[in-house]
Amino acid sequence: MIKVTIYNEYKHELEDERIAAVYPKGIHGCIADFLSADGDMEIKTFTMHNVEEITDEVLKETDVLIWWGHCAHEAVPDEVAARVHNHVMCGMGFIALHSAHFSKPFIKLMGSTCSLCWRDGDRERLWNIMPSHPIAQGIGKYIEIPEEEMYGERFDVPTPDELIFLGWFRGGEVFRSGCVWNKGLGKVFYFQPGHESNPTYHIPEIQRIITNAVRFAAPCYRLPQIDCPNVSSPEADM
Amino acid sequence: MIKVTIYNEYKHELEDERIAAVYPKGIHGCIADFLSADGDMEIKTFTMHNVEEITDEVLKETDVLIWWGHCAHEAVPDEVAARVHNHVMCGMGFIALHSAHFSKPFIKLMGSTCSLCWRDGDRERLWNIMPSHPIAQGIGKYIEIPEEEMYGERFDVPTPDELIFLGWFRGGEVFRSGCVWNKGLGKVFYFQPGHESNPTYHIPEIQRIITNAVRFAAPCYRLPQIDCPNVSSPEADM
Amino acid sequence: MIKVTIYNEYKHELEDERIAAVYPKGIHGCIADFLSADGDMEIKTFTMHNVEEITDEVLKETDVLIWWGHCAHEAVPDEVAARVHNHVMCGMGFIALHSAHFSKPFIKLMGSTCSLCWRDGDRERLWNIMPSHPIAQGIGKYIEIPEEEMYGERFDVPTPDELIFLGWFRGGEVFRSGCVWNKGLGKVFYFQPGHESNPTYHIPEIQRIITNAVRFAAPCYRLPQIDCPNVSSPEADM
Amino acid sequence: MIKVTIYNEYKHELEDERIAAVYPKGIHGCIADFLSADGDMEIKTFTMHNVEEITDEVLKETDVLIWWGHCAHEAVPDEVAARVHNHVMCGMGFIALHSAHFSKPFIKLMGSTCSLCWRDGDRERLWNIMPSHPIAQGIGKYIEIPEEEMYGERFDVPTPDELIFLGWFRGGEVFRSGCVWNKGLGKVFYFQPGHESNPTYHIPEIQRIITNAVRFAAPCYRLPQIDCPNVSSPEADM
Repeated sequence: MIKVTIYNEYKHELEDERIAAVYPKGIHGCIADFLSADGDMEIKTFTMHNVEEITDEVLKETDVLIWWGHCAHEAVPDEVAARVHNHVMCGMGFIALHSAHFSKPFIKLMGSTCSLCWRDGDRERLWNIMPSHPIAQGIGKYIEIPEEEMYGERFDVPTPDELIFLGWFRGGEVFRSGCVWNKGLGKVFYFQPGHESNPTYHIPEIQRIITNAVRFAAPCYRLPQIDCPNVSSPEADM
Repeated sequence: MIKVTIYNEYKHELEDERIAAVYPKGIHGCIADFLSADGDMEIKTFTMHNVEEITDEVLKETDVLIWWGHCAHEAVPDEVAARVHNHVMCGMGFIALHSAHFSKPFIKLMGSTCSLCWRDGDRERLWNIMPSHPIAQGIGKYIEIPEEEMYGERFDVPTPDELIFLGWFRGGEVFRSGCVWNKGLGKVFYFQPGHESNPTYHIPEIQRIITNAVRFAAPCYRLPQIDCPNVSSPEADM
Repeated sequence: MIKVTIYNEYKHELEDERIAAVYPKGIHGCIADFLSADGDMEIKTFTMHNVEEITDEVLKETDVLIWWGHCAHEAVPDEVAARVHNHVMCGMGFIALHSAHFSKPFIKLMGSTCSLCWRDGDRERLWNIMPSHPIAQGIGKYIEIPEEEMYGERFDVPTPDELIFLGWFRGGEVFRSGCVWNKGLGKVFYFQPGHESNPTYHIPEIQRIITNAVRFAAPCYRLPQIDCPNVSSPEADM
Repeated sequence: MIKVTIYNEYKHELEDERIAAVYPKGIHGCIADFLSADGDMEIKTFTMHNVEEITDEVLKETDVLIWWGHCAHEAVPDEVAARVHNHVMCGMGFIALHSAHFSKPFIKLMGSTCSLCWRDGDRERLWNIMPSHPIAQGIGKYIEIPEEEMYGERFDVPTPDELIFLGWFRGGEVFRSGCVWNKGLGKVFYFQPGHESNPTYHIPEIQRIITNAVRFAAPCYRLPQIDCPNVSSPEADM
């Protein structure tokens, strides 16, 4: 049983009926639904309206935290971002979706600006350049996304430990759309598709990737905290 | 002409005469001296006593910032750490020495805890595992450091982009002692040797490495700031 | 059920009774035994005496190939090395043990000389620097190996995709003792311990690492061959 | 003075007058011309008609070897490829251009199939995703290449140490078009643009990249050969 916590800002869906029409149960509801359908996942969701309830207790019981945010990154208290960061250090998986590239926890994990260039309303072809990776299982050479927000290079993130997907956009840009980093003891996956006004999270292959990523990022090792010990010499014991 | 700024906490040297005996002009003075001797370097130094004077103006005029801190990391205001981070994003080089693994700017750049294990008073042999790297020029197979503080794995940092030196300690530990990361547009080099009570920065090979690192980390490209632009399609122009 | 093929040169054990005393069933027999004990592994073994029987048919039915060789690398025909290489490209896992750093398939996979420095009869402490990695599960901070052949840097291999273990040797050297590379669609793991005259493969933690590595390197994706297709434009279909 | 050796197959130019019209002096002549114009470069050229003259003596006197080949890879003797490989191990730089992805020396260096998908006659936009890299100096956000052969993912090469350029193709593909690997003591740069029927090497930004790459790949450290020494313990000397 993998314990998944989903944070979705949940602002667009409440304020704009066109977005609500795409995601009637919120983006978090959509993700929760397809993950549940995959079996043996236990799912909790949070939004900006109760973000401070993402406590240490919740995170201790979370294998993988999925994060979607866009225009209300500031509504997330610094303490929550620090808490999330700390649990990733200890082994919790973290999946940042789309505009979460600018979320507080992701920026703190990357240690860089995470900037990019962008344009609403383009067509994307998502190339699978590491088909042997667990996250890419069940995915063919590429996925067509009929409409998606363009995110283009230069994406200011550290060198990914694994680069799995490259995005091609009709308008002329490319993007490192699926990247893995080992941070502390945790695995971090950034995945670019998922603009709120496009039904991207309804596409079966996109659901497959996120589901695969949850399984991949679930920790096989976790510590209660990371310390910096003064140690005696192992040689002293020999 | 490379413009180097050195920050040294400068607390041990003022408070403990044994440390002052090792570094009569402060660690910053020692580093400034050997860098100057290499020619075409223009050097400024700062300490915890005027750390807030590390302004944007100073950093704009800095190619490479060297940082040494140990027991007064908290004396560095968050704004100064944020400023340093921002200039690294824009291209400034950053060299973190020894206990600067726990300095605010380095932690912010790494996005991880930077923890390790440690023990005072050991013997180190520093292995050069990437002799073709610019930072390793003039260095043989290894360097003997008769007495140094042991820093041991697990060093909780992201995967280095380049791993140049590995430390061997008589007491039984190993350490990734010389690592490079590309962060934003800047180059970051962490170098483990340099405990305040040991005359490590007087060793010619250590001076050579730090001098090489300054030349390596000096930017060939720099931007005034990193933005996240909404762009029109390059294809629209075709 | 993971299908494992083990190649062991099997020369020392037949020619030197001291080696035979350490590995009465051969190194391959020892490895086969502890892997079998882990359950759901189907194991085949080959030696230099029937190395040409490692055919395409055998490799097609192999998830992970383990390779131990030392003084008879030349007894392996180039065609067998090419065959192994080709199957790794297509997804087969490959684990090179100890002196297999100089085996034909490993050198072909690395594309570098794989040279190192060495000395018989030392004491090793194997540090686990990536405790969150699947291969490191069940392993503590370090493993003591009372006697082992020293392999020291510089190890001339490409930058590992994942660096899991660092070896410390009493004689003064360090080594990147456990490394992972993604090569083609296959995973390659190099693991340094295992000199024929030392009972290293009888140490439970070493057995745990090799068993973990087999599970890690078993492919989740595999192709019958890698081609270089002339393709029509995906855009032509839009 | 950087000593550059250029190998160009020089078959298309002799056999097809349309290609000769694009590169009247051969691709090697074109590259030699723009490199010479940059100053302090000493250039030798070889073709398939005298490829066996690329001797150890020539390679010893070569800082960087540039390689262009397409339909006559087999005309390069295995010994020449082995010789080139060996000199890269010792520190010589190697730049593989376009269809040299399938050249013998490049395949040997990569240790993978180097396959890709391709289509003649497309439009490319080459994105500069690492503007701080020495190879990218003087290059803007992207370069337009009006007509170029499409090379598309999956490009079967090991994880690049540095990924500098990403290619976008009008037909719908993406490609890791500019990659650096450290191999042995040498630096290897692969650069995708440069189909024989397109005037790509006449584009000033392309010339700038190749010139930068020569300066970057020129060795600062080189050994006559790589050995695998049996060493006494450094500790034995203490």
